[in-house]
Amino acid sequence: MRTVEWDNTNRQVLMIDQRLLPREYRVVSLENYHQVVVAIQEMIVRGAPAIGASAAFGMALAAQASQALNVEGMRNELSAAAEALVASRPTAANLAWAVGRILRVVNKGNFKQAPDLRDAVLDEAQRIADEDVEINKRMAEHGAALMGKNETVIHHCNTGALATVDWGTALGVIRLAHEQGKGPHVLVDETRPRLQGARLTAWELDQYGISYEIIADNAAGYFLNTGSVDRVFVGADRVAANGDVANKIGTYMLALAARDTEVPFFPVVPTSTVDLALAHGAQIPIEERDPQEVLGIEVGGERVTPEGAKARNPAFDVTPNRLITGIVTENGIVHPPFEVNLPIAVQKSES
Amino acid sequence: MRTVEWDNTNRQVLMIDQRLLPREYRVVSLENYHQVVVAIQEMIVRGAPAIGASAAFGMALAAQASQALNVEGMRNELSAAAEALVASRPTAANLAWAVGRILRVVNKGNFKQAPDLRDAVLDEAQRIADEDVEINKRMAEHGAALMGKNETVIHHCNTGALATVDWGTALGVIRLAHEQGKGPHVLVDETRPRLQGARLTAWELDQYGISYEIIADNAAGYFLNTGSVDRVFVGADRVAANGDVANKIGTYMLALAARDTEVPFFPVVPTSTVDLALAHGAQIPIEERDPQEVLGIEVGGERVTPEGAKARNPAFDVTPNRLITGIVTENGIVHPPFEVNLPIAVQKSES
Repeated sequence: MRTVEWDNTNRQVLMIDQRLLPREYRVVSLENYHQVVVAIQEMIVRGAPAIGASAAFGMALAAQASQALNVEGMRNELSAAAEALVASRPTAANLAWAVGRILRVVNKGNFKQAPDLRDAVLDEAQRIADEDVEINKRMAEHGAALMGKNETVIHHCNTGALATVDWGTALGVIRLAHEQGKGPHVLVDETRPRLQGARLTAWELDQYGISYEIIADNAAGYFLNTGSVDRVFVGADRVAANGDVANKIGTYMLALAARDTEVPFFPVVPTSTVDLALAHGAQIPIEERDPQEVLGIEVGGERVTPEGAKARNPAFDVTPNRLITGIVTENGIVHPPFEVNLPIAVQKSES
Repeated sequence: MRTVEWDNTNRQVLMIDQRLLPREYRVVSLENYHQVVVAIQEMIVRGAPAIGASAAFGMALAAQASQALNVEGMRNELSAAAEALVASRPTAANLAWAVGRILRVVNKGNFKQAPDLRDAVLDEAQRIADEDVEINKRMAEHGAALMGKNETVIHHCNTGALATVDWGTALGVIRLAHEQGKGPHVLVDETRPRLQGARLTAWELDQYGISYEIIADNAAGYFLNTGSVDRVFVGADRVAANGDVANKIGTYMLALAARDTEVPFFPVVPTSTVDLALAHGAQIPIEERDPQEVLGIEVGGERVTPEGAKARNPAFDVTPNRLITGIVTENGIVHPPFEVNLPIAVQKSES
């Protein structure tokens, strides 16, 4: 199944519970948009494109549950649902983008009755999900074309099928290169604190039969500096108009090391992740999550941090555009100057 | 007690078992130098200065256990012990330095009988241990003088009393600043994979009553880039003649982020860690440890990596001298050009 999908029989949203992988593969069903908000906050679903599609399906659940007798009443209810869904996590641009797409349908359509609006919301949510898969495959084509045979790449966090509706962004590039017989080898950043690399990316690479080794995030610089790495691919949660990239915490230091060692560094980003309303990355809101994500680490069955220890836990950081070789989008690879070329790439998708 | 010390009653070496902290404080006693080799390899004791002193005491155990009837026989036995102790871990310069100091006493002294040599070895080992504490305090004076009131510093790995015979190198600087009433606040890199920061540094800071928060190593760049950090202090395992610094894995990326954000970056290094025989850092041997240190991470009582996953686990990386603001030594702060100034600082200790 897809990471998130609409169950038309039961009229529910189905999601793979990503908190349990790789130990357990469990699918949860969500019956209302409040559950979608919680699923996003608690990271049952994560990854910018996947939470965008989840929020869109959340809007479909809100439309379905509506008791409104007319179109205007349902519009009001959907507006409240939109607000809650967009606020569920602050950093990923795809949330507001997907909900915004739904709202444009809601507000611009000429609907006779409430059920017409309900159907239109579900249709648009389904379209967002289907397009996400298709867009990922286009990004993969552009990104894999960069790669030669037997390249070793560093990958941060999880950007695979699990981070999207299906296929993946940065990991989708690597996956296509593998299918093309290019034999990529992946150094998988474990990605503290939530270990999306060690848990999810490693699990996906196992499924696809792609060669990989897990490394502590600290070790990326060592491998870059010893000439072992050909390329770095990462995803993104929000990209500012100038090409500054907010992505999983640690990406900034990884990009610094890639630049220092002259290894090409490519975020792989659907244009839905680009937020042209923000001039630069310092304007991107950065979520700080529960310190327990840092403090709860265990080895040998024992928690290792002292009782009562405090922690800070920013979930993302901003990589300045000067460290980025190119941004892989569904409309091709965007090169510097990003402030000129990124808006052009975004407009191609909007036209 | 000290991290490592000589038990004169039982004529053994005592060590705090650092693998068990902070859950359990246990002291182990070692009866022969083979046990010291294993204690270093398994990281019952770690930290470059601490393993230097441990190796010196290992030599004292070897001398004590010797059945040699004359000085020459004991010299041969000590030569074999020296080889095993120096080879126990490859990166830290202090191992070869401490064993070398013992061997100079062994080979240069004019000993009548084997017991005279035995006593001289123990005396020199004890001197190395005592000097380590005194040197740390001198480094702390130099380093703490750099600091203003209420500074926030990032610290990587553990460089405290546990990494030395007592007091600490980089953490010793912070400790003295605290005692001087400067009120430092420490962002403690958890330091994957072995979590010396989350386990040992946090535990030490608790003991000293110093304010701290643990962060994922990935988050250091975020805090540097958001203007939250005044200074970075790290230790070192070996420093080349040009000032390139081998230190715990992740130091290189931390130094890159400090440089990119114009935050001063200071390794705190006894001159015993400087290896003038190596022209630059690329010549420093880097230990790669058991992949299980990476793969064994657990959350919620469960191992998170997939069955059969592989990992790479380099324990150190090299930070090039161009990223270093200054090197704090017991003979003062060494500034660039390090290839000129570092040998001068080392010679001050040798003269």
